[in-house]
Formats: sequence, C-alpha cells, structure tokens
Amino acid sequence: MVKLVAVYRTPEDPAAFDKHYFETHVPLAKKMPGLIKCEIEKVVGSPMPSAETPYLAAHMYFANMDALKAAMASPEGKASAKDLMGFAGKYVRMHFTQVVEG
Amino acid sequence: MVKLVAVYRTPEDPAAFDKHYFETHVPLAKKMPGLIKCEIEKVVGSPMPSAETPYLAAHMYFANMDALKAAMASPEGKASAKDLMGFAGKYVRMHFTQVVEG
Repeated sequence: MVKLVAVYRTPEDPAAFDKHYFETHVPLAKKMPGLIKCEIEKVVGSPMPSAETPYLAAHMYFANMDALKAAMASPEGKASAKDLMGFAGKYVRMHFTQVVEG
Repeated sequence: MVKLVAVYRTPEDPAAFDKHYFETHVPLAKKMPGLIKCEIEKVVGSPMPSAETPYLAAHMYFANMDALKAAMASPEGKASAKDLMGFAGKYVRMHFTQVVEG
C-alpha cells in the first residue's frame, strides 16, 4: 500500500479554509480512481510544546505507485489538484509514502 | 480515534537508524497499553520536487486522548520515549491528531 500525503500548515483564515476543504476539496479528491481510503486528521496538540506542528493532514491510500500516479494523472486527479492549488497552494506540502507496517 | 504521530527527518546514518528503529524501537512502542494500530510509512518521493519531505512517519492510533495520554504515562510509554530520545531525539517531531474522516 502507498499513500499520497498532503500536510497543511495553519491557514490565515481557518474557518474559511475548513469550509472550502471539507465542502469542496475533499469531495473532489475522493473522486480519484483507485483511491482505497482517505483519512483526514486535525492536529490537536503536541508532547513537544516548542515543536512546529501542522494544521491538518490527509492520507490517501492506493494499492501501489502505479495506481497513485494514474489517479493523479486522471481528469479527477487534475480537477482536485487545480482546486487545491487555488485555495491552499501556499499551505500544502505533499509527499508519497510506502506503508511498511500496519 | 486519535493518533500520536511521530515524524522523522532524514538521519545522518539511515541504515543504523532503520536497524535500531525497526528492531528495538518499534517493538517497545507497540507495548504501549491501549495502542489500537501502529502504521509506519517511509517517504518515497514527492509531486513537489522542491518540497522538504520527511524520512519516515509512525501513526499510533488510540481510542481517545485519555487513552493516548495514559499510554504515554505508562511504564511502557516511558520506556519507549526514553529509547526514542536516545537514538532519534534530534530527528523526531511528535504531535497529537484527531481523526476527523476515514
């Protein structure tokens, strides 16, 4: 299993961000073909008070890297990416991961 | 569901890090009471070539924040934290998250 992980830093207007994110962006992202699971988490604290923490993260699971890259290249993936860059381009960082346990 | 998330930046000696991490640290962390699931992922790339990406992340799932904090305060949690600080204190950042979808 592999993941496309999107990590967001705290936006200037969290309420407006959340509204667009959950009402518009997540439904678009969930249309990507091959998406097995989408887990979204909000950061609520840290055991390291001085640590810089993200605001929110999304974990999109795919069977393998071919499926992930096909999803990103699909019309649904491109629509999701376009929406993302429009409302959160300056807040988001993305990476690919291989699940090695769990 | 809540998570204790540990994110590691690339260590100076990845092979030595991996050996200690998978052979010693993960078995210790998995002894924490109340741990529901432990997912470990290795970063394998990014669609944003210029983005700083982590090296590895662990996602430890608990029923709620009380269970998570009890796990960290337990003898098993303290043993895991002590081991962590010994071999990876300068590489790791941790935060708590609330799973809001997925």
